[in-house]
Amino acid sequence: MLEKADAGRRSGSKTKVRVRVVENGGTRVRPDTLATEEPMEIRLLTGGARRTVAVTMRTPGSDFELAAGFLYGEGVVSSPDEIKKISYCVDPDVDAAQRYNIVNVELRETAGNTYDLRPLERSFYTTSACGVCGKASLEQLELRGYPELPQGPEISPETVYSLPQRLREEQGLFEKTGGLHAAALFDAAGGLVAIREDVGRHNATDKLVGWALLEGRLPLNDHVVMVSGRTSYEILQKCVAAGVPIVCAVSAPSSLAVDVARRFGVTLVGFLRGNRFNVYSAPRRVCG
Amino acid sequence: MLEKADAGRRSGSKTKVRVRVVENGGTRVRPDTLATEEPMEIRLLTGGARRTVAVTMRTPGSDFELAAGFLYGEGVVSSPDEIKKISYCVDPDVDAAQRYNIVNVELRETAGNTYDLRPLERSFYTTSACGVCGKASLEQLELRGYPELPQGPEISPETVYSLPQRLREEQGLFEKTGGLHAAALFDAAGGLVAIREDVGRHNATDKLVGWALLEGRLPLNDHVVMVSGRTSYEILQKCVAAGVPIVCAVSAPSSLAVDVARRFGVTLVGFLRGNRFNVYSAPRRVCG
Repeated sequence: MLEKADAGRRSGSKTKVRVRVVENGGTRVRPDTLATEEPMEIRLLTGGARRTVAVTMRTPGSDFELAAGFLYGEGVVSSPDEIKKISYCVDPDVDAAQRYNIVNVELRETAGNTYDLRPLERSFYTTSACGVCGKASLEQLELRGYPELPQGPEISPETVYSLPQRLREEQGLFEKTGGLHAAALFDAAGGLVAIREDVGRHNATDKLVGWALLEGRLPLNDHVVMVSGRTSYEILQKCVAAGVPIVCAVSAPSSLAVDVARRFGVTLVGFLRGNRFNVYSAPRRVCG
Repeated sequence: MLEKADAGRRSGSKTKVRVRVVENGGTRVRPDTLATEEPMEIRLLTGGARRTVAVTMRTPGSDFELAAGFLYGEGVVSSPDEIKKISYCVDPDVDAAQRYNIVNVELRETAGNTYDLRPLERSFYTTSACGVCGKASLEQLELRGYPELPQGPEISPETVYSLPQRLREEQGLFEKTGGLHAAALFDAAGGLVAIREDVGRHNATDKLVGWALLEGRLPLNDHVVMVSGRTSYEILQKCVAAGVPIVCAVSAPSSLAVDVARRFGVTLVGFLRGNRFNVYSAPRRVCG
């Protein structure tokens, strides 16, 4: 599926290389496995027009979910019904290896339905009119009209403690490469529903949300999202868009992640390690 | 300097909040410090025209270096002489708080000198003509004509072992927030030259390179860059542009990071912990 590149033998999401290990002054050579990083271009096909809307460095795998999740997070599509077809590029003038790095998303044309591509414009360029500061960023999210989150679910601290171990058990690629972020979806009882991995933190979340969109499972009002690293504005924004009421992370949130969580009523958990975690917002759902 | 926002009291790069700690079933409330995340817009002023070239989520601090480093990494400027002035936005129609999130970079107009903004276009949109795959990404870098790296410097494994501890000692914000990436510049003897931190890994590197650019220190042919996390295509690309021959990281590289390192002859070190590290490319500089 992927071309043979310089670093070594690629097989989708993993790349095998030979590495020199230096330890206590001695050196030896051994095989190693890296997380594959390759660019992916997302093209939008609508009304006969074709347009590149994003190029992201990602780990191959769940590419269609990544494309769908990205478009959902950006507010371009709001329902799986709006997507007619997702496919790899089949243009004969595109090199075979590259075809698997170009994903075409064809939108359904329905009478009176025109897709709003302005959110994407905002991602690329902003003007002084919309301003840039944390407050303006939150106001932009409010303008998107995300539905209000439910009061529940409520989950016990013990269930919260158990999530990192479940994440790690399922995080197959990370164990091999040490180089991947994961985003996992749990139900309120702590049962794992889905997990996605990527070199990019935001991509792992887009893949997870894209999966839920294509499966018709949005909004994820009864679920918990857990990420392997830190939480940022972007991660929280994607979770709010998907209706996730509880977001947990192994590491720290940024200030703007907490701002978004508080503004939209998301329960944001950080530093979830062992029998301990911090709650930055809406603690009622996890404090027993 | 920054507005008071929802999450708590901001003071530049740090934000104070109150957090609920849940531990072994009990809960308590205590103050906590987060890494501040705020959007920053980079505007390019040249020939009377003004243009927004990027909006990035960053940790306030070293903003001018971030802007300069970003433009250098993208190939828009190649020398500090090309920059006439860097300043915060002073438009009276921009809200006071936002002014510190908008950085204007004014380029010097010299006869016959026109800045090439096409690299930026490529960042936003690509076409099938340039293709997207790891190989095409490397070829794009080659077209930028980066100077060849020197054979040296050679540094001992013991010096390499010492870098993470020095990084950690200086990484003031991380200690407080647990939420920041760091990029540090060392000389060949292991002496720390400069360090920059940010919620975004690429931003920390841009700040470091921007500092070197504005100080007239590029290319960094005798230096080592060490980053606190993983290495990606983007980090390696920025280091190649700055002429850095040795790049070290606490964690794993991606496949494309290794590709870039091998193609341009960068010594790439990963999993640098205790008296142990992996070398993925050009081992001669660090293997004694």
